[in-house]
Amino acid sequence: MKILLIGGTGTLGTAVHEALDIRGHEVLTVGRGGGDLRYDVTDPVQVAEVYDRAGRVDAVVSAAGHVPYKPVTELVPEDYLAAFRGKVLSQIDLVRQGVSRVAERGSFTLVTGVLAREPIPLGAAASMANGAVEAFVRAAAVEIAPQRVNAVSPTVFTESLGRYGDFFPGMPSVDLVDVARAYVRSVEGAQTGQVFVP
Amino acid sequence: MKILLIGGTGTLGTAVHEALDIRGHEVLTVGRGGGDLRYDVTDPVQVAEVYDRAGRVDAVVSAAGHVPYKPVTELVPEDYLAAFRGKVLSQIDLVRQGVSRVAERGSFTLVTGVLAREPIPLGAAASMANGAVEAFVRAAAVEIAPQRVNAVSPTVFTESLGRYGDFFPGMPSVDLVDVARAYVRSVEGAQTGQVFVP
Repeated sequence: MKILLIGGTGTLGTAVHEALDIRGHEVLTVGRGGGDLRYDVTDPVQVAEVYDRAGRVDAVVSAAGHVPYKPVTELVPEDYLAAFRGKVLSQIDLVRQGVSRVAERGSFTLVTGVLAREPIPLGAAASMANGAVEAFVRAAAVEIAPQRVNAVSPTVFTESLGRYGDFFPGMPSVDLVDVARAYVRSVEGAQTGQVFVP
Repeated sequence: MKILLIGGTGTLGTAVHEALDIRGHEVLTVGRGGGDLRYDVTDPVQVAEVYDRAGRVDAVVSAAGHVPYKPVTELVPEDYLAAFRGKVLSQIDLVRQGVSRVAERGSFTLVTGVLAREPIPLGAAASMANGAVEAFVRAAAVEIAPQRVNAVSPTVFTESLGRYGDFFPGMPSVDLVDVARAYVRSVEGAQTGQVFVP
């Protein structure tokens, strides 16, 4: 398949890229700072340009989303708006603009995260964003068939425990290779409206 | 208790108001178009004014939230932003600004809805908004204790089946009196971070 990978140069994106390569897919990476196509998908105009440049693809896979982490009493409306634009609206727009452009049985795989289910201090904006995307995925799925849309919702990566482990005390981590496998499942499988927890 | 009820003149708000009255609470209603205090809580400045006018309250209860309903291919970024401001950010801001103002063991009860879990056509923005608020509630709860925050997440009201029943084919409805009871449970009970499904 020809696959558009958003955020292909980050920790997660690199692992997903590798897994898709191994499966024999042709991967086109998109990123603000690096990748085959340099675009910022938080801007709907640039999302349109990405699709124009990419041509017909079979799957769109997102490994990008930025949200601020602060105490709930310090998160101001602008922070929630930043989380909304950075992780929710950006990914929703990939679907909205992609429906008319990806293959008839193409798929979208968005990224969320454990904070949708399991809260941690400083994570209210992240939880909000992840919960929004997961509910959107369930809703969009019933309308875009036979195209499909799923989310992959990992906990902290084992490879990132050194940096982020203290935020997830006693919580299990997940190896990047297992997260990437969930993306392969979403892309090559037949399910839709799912939140895959690797 | 002294309770601030946002959206106290709508279908749900009226039922909640009645249930809180029966329990002997002093209820102060807030609404754009009606109520004891006329304010629009989608504006953070007006949220501050509401709290200034209300003085110390023991609970904040929200029965207000507006989102657009359209096919997922017609929902544009402005629609999602409207849903975000109308149901997510407005309710989050009631908590953010309320933490320093409500009673030490005060509570917040927000409104979400079945579309967080069960999708229907036209409901992608509503699903997104409900999922966002429910995840926020779980996250905020771990930070604001001993204050509490919960959501009430009803399906279509039995009393509204004439108008909205066709959007929920074969799905059970819930009587307004049962939804209002879930608000009482949230306000008078001891739980936090919960999504009560009446």
